[in-house]
Amino acid sequence: MPRDLTFTLDALRAAYAGGLRPEAVVEEAFARLDALNDPGIFLHQARAVALAEARALGSPDGRPLWGIPYAVKDNIDVAGMPTTAACPGFVHVAGADAFVVARLRALGAICLGKTNLDQFATGLVGVRTPYPVPRNAVDPALVPGGSSSGSAVAVARGLVAFSLGTDTAGSGRVPAAFNDIVGLKPSLGALSSAGMVPACRTLDTVSLFAHSVAEAWELFALTAGFDAADPWSRPLPRQQLAPLPPSVTVAVPDEASLRTFGDTAQASHFRATVERLRHGGASVREIDLAPFYAVAELLYTGPWVAERVAAVGARLTEAPETLHETTRVILAPGLKFSAVDTFKGLYRLEELRRACALALDGIDFLCVPTIPCFVTLEEVAADPFEPNSRLGTYTNFVNLLDMCGITVPTGPRPDGRPGSLTVLARKGEDSRAAALALWVERGGAAASPADGPADSEIADGEIAEDEIGIAVCGAHMAGLPLNGELTGRGGRFLREARTCAAYQLFALPGGPPARPGLVRRGDGSGGAIALEVWALPRAAFGDFLAGIPSPLAIGTVELEDGGVVKGFLCETHGLDDARDITASGGWRAALAEE
Amino acid sequence: MPRDLTFTLDALRAAYAGGLRPEAVVEEAFARLDALNDPGIFLHQARAVALAEARALGSPDGRPLWGIPYAVKDNIDVAGMPTTAACPGFVHVAGADAFVVARLRALGAICLGKTNLDQFATGLVGVRTPYPVPRNAVDPALVPGGSSSGSAVAVARGLVAFSLGTDTAGSGRVPAAFNDIVGLKPSLGALSSAGMVPACRTLDTVSLFAHSVAEAWELFALTAGFDAADPWSRPLPRQQLAPLPPSVTVAVPDEASLRTFGDTAQASHFRATVERLRHGGASVREIDLAPFYAVAELLYTGPWVAERVAAVGARLTEAPETLHETTRVILAPGLKFSAVDTFKGLYRLEELRRACALALDGIDFLCVPTIPCFVTLEEVAADPFEPNSRLGTYTNFVNLLDMCGITVPTGPRPDGRPGSLTVLARKGEDSRAAALALWVERGGAAASPADGPADSEIADGEIAEDEIGIAVCGAHMAGLPLNGELTGRGGRFLREARTCAAYQLFALPGGPPARPGLVRRGDGSGGAIALEVWALPRAAFGDFLAGIPSPLAIGTVELEDGGVVKGFLCETHGLDDARDITASGGWRAALAEE
Repeated sequence: MPRDLTFTLDALRAAYAGGLRPEAVVEEAFARLDALNDPGIFLHQARAVALAEARALGSPDGRPLWGIPYAVKDNIDVAGMPTTAACPGFVHVAGADAFVVARLRALGAICLGKTNLDQFATGLVGVRTPYPVPRNAVDPALVPGGSSSGSAVAVARGLVAFSLGTDTAGSGRVPAAFNDIVGLKPSLGALSSAGMVPACRTLDTVSLFAHSVAEAWELFALTAGFDAADPWSRPLPRQQLAPLPPSVTVAVPDEASLRTFGDTAQASHFRATVERLRHGGASVREIDLAPFYAVAELLYTGPWVAERVAAVGARLTEAPETLHETTRVILAPGLKFSAVDTFKGLYRLEELRRACALALDGIDFLCVPTIPCFVTLEEVAADPFEPNSRLGTYTNFVNLLDMCGITVPTGPRPDGRPGSLTVLARKGEDSRAAALALWVERGGAAASPADGPADSEIADGEIAEDEIGIAVCGAHMAGLPLNGELTGRGGRFLREARTCAAYQLFALPGGPPARPGLVRRGDGSGGAIALEVWALPRAAFGDFLAGIPSPLAIGTVELEDGGVVKGFLCETHGLDDARDITASGGWRAALAEE
Repeated sequence: MPRDLTFTLDALRAAYAGGLRPEAVVEEAFARLDALNDPGIFLHQARAVALAEARALGSPDGRPLWGIPYAVKDNIDVAGMPTTAACPGFVHVAGADAFVVARLRALGAICLGKTNLDQFATGLVGVRTPYPVPRNAVDPALVPGGSSSGSAVAVARGLVAFSLGTDTAGSGRVPAAFNDIVGLKPSLGALSSAGMVPACRTLDTVSLFAHSVAEAWELFALTAGFDAADPWSRPLPRQQLAPLPPSVTVAVPDEASLRTFGDTAQASHFRATVERLRHGGASVREIDLAPFYAVAELLYTGPWVAERVAAVGARLTEAPETLHETTRVILAPGLKFSAVDTFKGLYRLEELRRACALALDGIDFLCVPTIPCFVTLEEVAADPFEPNSRLGTYTNFVNLLDMCGITVPTGPRPDGRPGSLTVLARKGEDSRAAALALWVERGGAAASPADGPADSEIADGEIAEDEIGIAVCGAHMAGLPLNGELTGRGGRFLREARTCAAYQLFALPGGPPARPGLVRRGDGSGGAIALEVWALPRAAFGDFLAGIPSPLAIGTVELEDGGVVKGFLCETHGLDDARDITASGGWRAALAEE
């Protein structure tokens, strides 16, 4: 009986392995929906179709999403189902699946229906819909959050294992924070947006809601891929979730730029989360978010509103009555911007991008509260605009800056409302963001962010086929001056290790940066030297090697556990003026002794 | 007497080495200008300042552009000189050098003045200026070409060694074709555009005119660099001019999409140039340029005209009489485009970019005639618009597609007009484009494009930027058992060489295959060991290295000629049962002795 079954990927897979039928899961999902009595979650329920698909699945066939129920935001096409974008006048029955839906179908997932949203994905509250508003899954007094309201609530209510949302300015993150679930906002172009109703085409991405970071990441890895039919699709490197280096640098808003609109619990909860990061070994740097806020301001006060007008088409001028009143008011200014205004806006954005890039120089992640404060249905009823705007404080700038992010629950605040952190990273660094989010999700159960994805498919320290492992014993180690030569080439930290007890370590003359030299001795002298093992994309190795000066070389290093790995060695002829630091046991220890 | 001196970098450097004074060169340059009696080339002549700077240079100090005279297009700031952009009403005296000018000044170059242009760089004919039109350097009946008219003519007339232009849609290439010189259009962001009057900021780049490809490349390499103050500046990899692989794939317009507007000599000259490429070993593929033309059409019929309006500012509406009549007519439609139009234009561009990228899949270069036909002063007087539009056929799409290119003379056509080819490549591939242009410039004197830059600064001349050189001293040498590990990964033989006299060579135990170990000695023992230097694609190096067993390593080997190269070394701990074969002088000799 699936009545007690939590609809996570893991639990469903286990249940299917035990003989449960997908049609039972589909029936249970709809029974749960009926029991909820919340007509605002789904705009279209695909009961019959989903049941038929479940029956047609036959026996488990090894496909990773075989029988997994999910929901699709109603601005993404599912073949044979209506797409409304929460605008009844816009409705059309999709002739084909969106790229991501087609992929999920091929992987065995079952779509249960289409979910509610702020009309045309314009809003962060989830109430800007002509249909009933989905109830917040945590507290019915709160807005559900939007624009992907129904998709977030469907996951939070346990109706589906995951759902598709979209994210143009926060729609894939804000409702995750409001409903205490995980929301993954991919790098632009990682998931094809073919088959999605645009909001701002230059900023839009499909997003994912899930019950955990690991499951969100798995879904991302399964659905990401280049799609020639989507002009914004980008061939990003195949990514794996992997542990982070022992020390990561996390930027957070400084005191002056932390905005919570008087919600002191939100500020103190965020500070506590940052403290956990610090305690876990992260190097926390407070920065002024002013340039980021300036970017966000462009989105709704600048010409980007016209992108939304372009998406809505002639409807705004020719059939304005078919639009939600709030949507109409928001879009109208978009008609007034000129091409000259637009280019000036693009120039301003380019300047601010540079300013933000400089602010994040040397920083791995930007961590922010997902939302600055909570918003109630009552507040939005009183003012449909201002409370909504507040919610974009930490999300609006992200898409314009071409960043990726993942929203992760951080436990309840003292008042019971859900805490939430969003980990942001540069485009293409989705896996790194997920790795940090994984650590945050575990709430300090793991000692440090480096103790990342034990749950993932990638066994700890495993080197992918298109990577090469390299042992570093000096300035290339995490946080040391030359570490950027690895991370800048897509290198990722695997683990700490020690050589077998046959190596000498020398401090070489010269520098900065100071460099050590590792030499193997055949005479039984020498000791075990601390190393870090990193994985570098094979294609980047030649470039990395080209910069390694004499007397250093890359050879084979034997580890304490008997394994071997490529790594830095030193020619003996280069040791003339070097100092033997073998006794210190490693470069970090030697640095600490100085 | 510098009267006979050609003002190339090479010739000037030789003359300076022989004791010539820079002030004599400056005087000679202005004497030549006076003799030309062409008041349209320079809008500002910096005679006194240039002379003073020349005197102040003192003795040759090794700076690469010490005493080299050059000219600057009058939409780029030179401190203390007026900038007009060929609009007298716009004039201001620059308080600071543009980034590129400051760099040239630091390198010792002397600016002789500011050159004429199509007003606000809007035009490809060079006659859209309220000042006298510069005379075409080849045929006075022809337009000079624009918009960088004066800069191109100044080089072609031998007044300067090089000049700065700008290129938004062909302004750095078309006048090069009209005046039979080299024009280099860098990748967007390679040369900072800080201090340049914008035309379309999202497309603008500073460009270079020079007497030869090698000199244009050298100037590019000297001036390229990241500039945080220019939001469009990009940190591109430092590039070296290097030979091309033995076979390159070159796309050219197919018969149906080769547009010459009835100029049959242009078509046949282009075909002959393509034949030379084919004869030289290039794999030539004819493609349909339709998507590229569709991109070009966006530039003047779409919202990008509004970028030019944004650059001109309120002048168009508030002081239109201060604009050239033609400029005014061209810019006016830019006021009519809306923000919605602009985003739709950006979407269309993104779609076309994808189409063009797919058309160039597997192709190294796109080669086009620089101009489809010639245009006379008479034709432009009769119609100021249409003949100008024609000239952008093969240039307009380039900036919108984020490509780089270099325009190179291909010898006279039968009617004496100059032939010209433009080699286009993807962003960041400037050095590859220059390498092919170098081969074209030599007119088949070299057997194949792979015989590239013998003249270049790279003495070794053999390792391309995307390769890494590796010295092999044993089983990886040509014909020996492991040579396939190089050739199978695209490795190619470069040359034989010997180490400096400080290495020992050992025959290692084990095998087959038998392997040697090369070890450097710091004690003066050892000898010179025979090697082979191979080039391996950088991307393949990680894969190659992964298969190298202990005790071998890849480090740095010093050669007999003082050069260094990456190469095989051996850890000393692996020499226990090895046999010293240093006396044989190398692995092949040692094998022969057995």
